[in-house]
Amino acid sequence: MDTSRLSNQIQFILEIDKLKGVLRRSYLLGADRRENSAEHSWHLAMMAMTLVEHSNEPVDIARVIKMTLIHDIVEVDAGDTYCYDTVGWTEKEERERVAADRLFGLLPSDQGLELRTLWEEFESRQTPDAKFATALDRLMPLMHNYHTKGRAWLQNGILRAQVIERNRPIGEGSKKLWEVAEQLINDAVEKGYLLPQ
Amino acid sequence: MDTSRLSNQIQFILEIDKLKGVLRRSYLLGADRRENSAEHSWHLAMMAMTLVEHSNEPVDIARVIKMTLIHDIVEVDAGDTYCYDTVGWTEKEERERVAADRLFGLLPSDQGLELRTLWEEFESRQTPDAKFATALDRLMPLMHNYHTKGRAWLQNGILRAQVIERNRPIGEGSKKLWEVAEQLINDAVEKGYLLPQ
Repeated sequence: MDTSRLSNQIQFILEIDKLKGVLRRSYLLGADRRENSAEHSWHLAMMAMTLVEHSNEPVDIARVIKMTLIHDIVEVDAGDTYCYDTVGWTEKEERERVAADRLFGLLPSDQGLELRTLWEEFESRQTPDAKFATALDRLMPLMHNYHTKGRAWLQNGILRAQVIERNRPIGEGSKKLWEVAEQLINDAVEKGYLLPQ
Repeated sequence: MDTSRLSNQIQFILEIDKLKGVLRRSYLLGADRRENSAEHSWHLAMMAMTLVEHSNEPVDIARVIKMTLIHDIVEVDAGDTYCYDTVGWTEKEERERVAADRLFGLLPSDQGLELRTLWEEFESRQTPDAKFATALDRLMPLMHNYHTKGRAWLQNGILRAQVIERNRPIGEGSKKLWEVAEQLINDAVEKGYLLPQ
């Protein structure tokens, strides 16, 4: 038994506990606080299990679940970048690359490489697995916003056109879920949860 | 397309958002607050991915991950029962069965049955997948306690013998992880994080 291998794995597990302290902009449905990236990742994985039949293309559900679980791990170092924050967004890529080097680098190299490759696949949004995982990652905050009466949208002065632009990739993963998203967006504008322009 | 099927799935996804508000006894490593069951479930799934090679028996990692993701969902209705609370524990089973009926019942029946069966398999701790998932579910809070200097143990007056008894099933899933657990317990007593008797 290679003890340093197990000890590196445990080090990684302890380190990613910090993801529970990374706050997103979205608010929980039933509690008056912002969501953190660890519980968001759990919710996405549950969403993948539940909605997999609505993917445009066949996907490997085990890979999609793993992708959702690790997709935000870089935020332990890089923090959450608000998806409508165009300034933070320009340097996001570099910050997250450095974070991926350090965090996945804590693992034994074979495992670090596996997770890093999976994360890069998610980021590139080219494969069916990554397109479906992305669809979930966009739809979830939209549902949170809608069901909290647009709280984070209104707080941040977000407009309908921005939400449409941000969420259009949902359709690349699931046309069916993009229909759901469009309906939520239209209802949100009608109810005053989202600014029309 | 059966719209009521998708609408039931979304109802389930929205409902389990509440798991983010169910607090456990354990404290986070880097933040001064108690852990919730949703972020705990994410962490367990990550642990499964990382430590799967240490299982005593071969397991289906995709099933183990799904098991860790859903293992606490009943707490949305039944709440978290502290593992050393012998009073709450006696009625835990009935409360959780009723919760499982309602929560998995929100899903289309084929999916509800699949998740319910997986949850029951986890609870029964008989299969290799369930034994390994249980090992992780016991080891994680032990690591949290150790790395927060026994905060929850000391707050609740927990004794070494109780921790040994509670965590022995770790060995049924992974002898290697039980060695890690024993070392943490012994160190914890030595450092005053855990009462010897």
